Amino acid sequence: MFPTDPVSNLAALIRCPSVTPAEGGALAALEAMLAPVGFKVDRVVAKEPGTPDIENLYARIGGEGPHLMFAGHTDVVPVGDEAAWSRPPFSAAIAEGEMYGRGAVDMKGGIACFVAAVARHVEKHGAPKGSISFLITGDEEGPAINGTVKLLEWAAARGERWDACLVGEPTNPDCIGDMIKIGRRGSLSGRITVHGVQGHAAYPHLADNPVRSILQLAQALMDPPFDDGTENFQPSNLEVTTIDVGNTAVNVIPAKASAAFNIRFNDRWTAESLMAEIVARLDRAAAGSALRPGRAPARYEIVWNERPSHVFLTRNNALIDSLSGAVEAVTGRQPQLSTTGGTSDARFIKDYCPVVEFGLVGKTMHMVDERVALADLEILTGIYETFIARWFGHAAA
Amino acid sequence: MFPTDPVSNLAALIRCPSVTPAEGGALAALEAMLAPVGFKVDRVVAKEPGTPDIENLYARIGGEGPHLMFAGHTDVVPVGDEAAWSRPPFSAAIAEGEMYGRGAVDMKGGIACFVAAVARHVEKHGAPKGSISFLITGDEEGPAINGTVKLLEWAAARGERWDACLVGEPTNPDCIGDMIKIGRRGSLSGRITVHGVQGHAAYPHLADNPVRSILQLAQALMDPPFDDGTENFQPSNLEVTTIDVGNTAVNVIPAKASAAFNIRFNDRWTAESLMAEIVARLDRAAAGSALRPGRAPARYEIVWNERPSHVFLTRNNALIDSLSGAVEAVTGRQPQLSTTGGTSDARFIKDYCPVVEFGLVGKTMHMVDERVALADLEILTGIYETFIARWFGHAAA
Repeated sequence: MFPTDPVSNLAALIRCPSVTPAEGGALAALEAMLAPVGFKVDRVVAKEPGTPDIENLYARIGGEGPHLMFAGHTDVVPVGDEAAWSRPPFSAAIAEGEMYGRGAVDMKGGIACFVAAVARHVEKHGAPKGSISFLITGDEEGPAINGTVKLLEWAAARGERWDACLVGEPTNPDCIGDMIKIGRRGSLSGRITVHGVQGHAAYPHLADNPVRSILQLAQALMDPPFDDGTENFQPSNLEVTTIDVGNTAVNVIPAKASAAFNIRFNDRWTAESLMAEIVARLDRAAAGSALRPGRAPARYEIVWNERPSHVFLTRNNALIDSLSGAVEAVTGRQPQLSTTGGTSDARFIKDYCPVVEFGLVGKTMHMVDERVALADLEILTGIYETFIARWFGHAAA
Repeated sequence: MFPTDPVSNLAALIRCPSVTPAEGGALAALEAMLAPVGFKVDRVVAKEPGTPDIENLYARIGGEGPHLMFAGHTDVVPVGDEAAWSRPPFSAAIAEGEMYGRGAVDMKGGIACFVAAVARHVEKHGAPKGSISFLITGDEEGPAINGTVKLLEWAAARGERWDACLVGEPTNPDCIGDMIKIGRRGSLSGRITVHGVQGHAAYPHLADNPVRSILQLAQALMDPPFDDGTENFQPSNLEVTTIDVGNTAVNVIPAKASAAFNIRFNDRWTAESLMAEIVARLDRAAAGSALRPGRAPARYEIVWNERPSHVFLTRNNALIDSLSGAVEAVTGRQPQLSTTGGTSDARFIKDYCPVVEFGLVGKTMHMVDERVALADLEILTGIYETFIARWFGHAAA
């Protein structure tokens, strides 16, 4: 069957219980859709000691440039309280114009629509004037170690090069056409630990309470704001997400205290300049945290979490205008070009080619009764089909 | 054997492994010392559901007033790392003029000296011109539920009344004669919990980070100081002893945060006025912690720990002058009249009669190699003996 119907495509995908790290049949189902259209499909298993093996998929139609990539994932988050779902989460049940199922919007729906869009394009115009590929991972909702990063490396090592990428994550807050993501803030996390001197609460002069210092260091991390935002980005924002002492004896001054933080940062900063600013703030606060004159500064250490996510902004007009124009042509709405929200696999793809994100409405993602309006599937398929035509037109011009 | 030698008395007590809640033979050994002197000894077992039964001892010589009580405990804290002791902790080994053992200074030593002092007094002068009693608990280092409080109630119910009390805890920081305790600060503890709204660190406007509020509430508890001290007391001091969030996901804003605190307070405050001040500080900080205009004040709750220890100051001149004069007569040093340090069972006794505290040098208490100079045992016995004579002289005058 030629996969021109996004509703059928999505039903087939939802019926595969592909909770990370399980493939659940979802990639097999996708392969069965793409092969009849003319795609050459590779299934790529990525391995890493200490993590489960992950199945991924790379499929391409066409042998020449320009080359457009569609990226996404078939893995889904757990269903949560299954009894609370009004329809079974892997049934793809339809009620009142909506299809229910885990992954309906995040993001089997986006994949189902892009498959349908390509199939319609090929049905009408034959093979694209260039190449289209699907880069689909089964490890986006999990640790993301055996997913997009390794699949990109695998493909690049085989000589694959791309001119642009569309990620099909749900980007619209309320209705389709609201928002295209043209970049993402960076994300940086760390943990600070302050060492004091343990003692009895009745003899504070013989101790050095690290709680006083952690309060001052945490406050210095949050105030003042790091910036007021930039042309394309919200203000950078830091949240201290935990403070932990774990002292159960109320008459004992503890020996140490720690706090963890996460900052979402804009293009005013690089991860490196931000780390330097954070250390400078902490050093100033530590120096000022001496309890009494002559007291040494608070002794603290900081451990940064793994690799930071770097901030990026896509400035490729052919890509952005093609997508924005397609949204407006189909919906009559001018989408906001946004850089808000969390990180996504786009942060990995941006190192290979310009990348934007546009998909379904995200309202029910990760929730009980995740679902999508059938009408939205048709609209998104139309947008994707229009986008494909415009992008190849742009690229040919 | 008439127990006039504090060294023999202490050796007998140290050899009883009376780690709370075990009697360990210590009260039996004490009874064996007191009976020959003429004391009527009662062994009183106190019980409470959920706590171990505790053996206590009450002994009295004389049937008339004035009535002087000596109070203390034979239970000891655990030995800690026994391998680190240079002599076994229950051996009462003597080396280089010091006796080693758990409880040597806290406070079997004080009991051993008071027994010797009374024995010498009786040997020289016959029975005291009034009454002397020992109120000795086996639950001072533990939960203190089945100890001094219940023993006082038991004795009072039998008609016992006292005119003054000396507690034999180690009160001297460096050498005997340094310090008499004539009162104690109060102690009050509580835990505050702040409720926020959980959310994703990338969408802080949809969440309400309780860490921000707990920082402000904790800061408000510590600053500014509660007072500058009073005539007889140090400044009140509050320590935030723990802050706990326990959030392990660095990209998640947590739902709640809590902090515990302990305040040692002077006679500028009652426990009640202090609780009111703390709530007022928290309310002000909560109102000011609104993150954005129009935001509601931080929602917090406070739970006070059990019963507070009330501050007290003893103003009985006969008692203080007798003891202070005895110290000066024996050591040539004028002891400081202090209210510093932690709480003690004196806080319970003060409801029955004026109470002061004086004992050995506390340096090694609760430590590995707890030990006492044999010379100190002789000096303290001399001070106690002189005190007994002076106090009964005062009382008779």
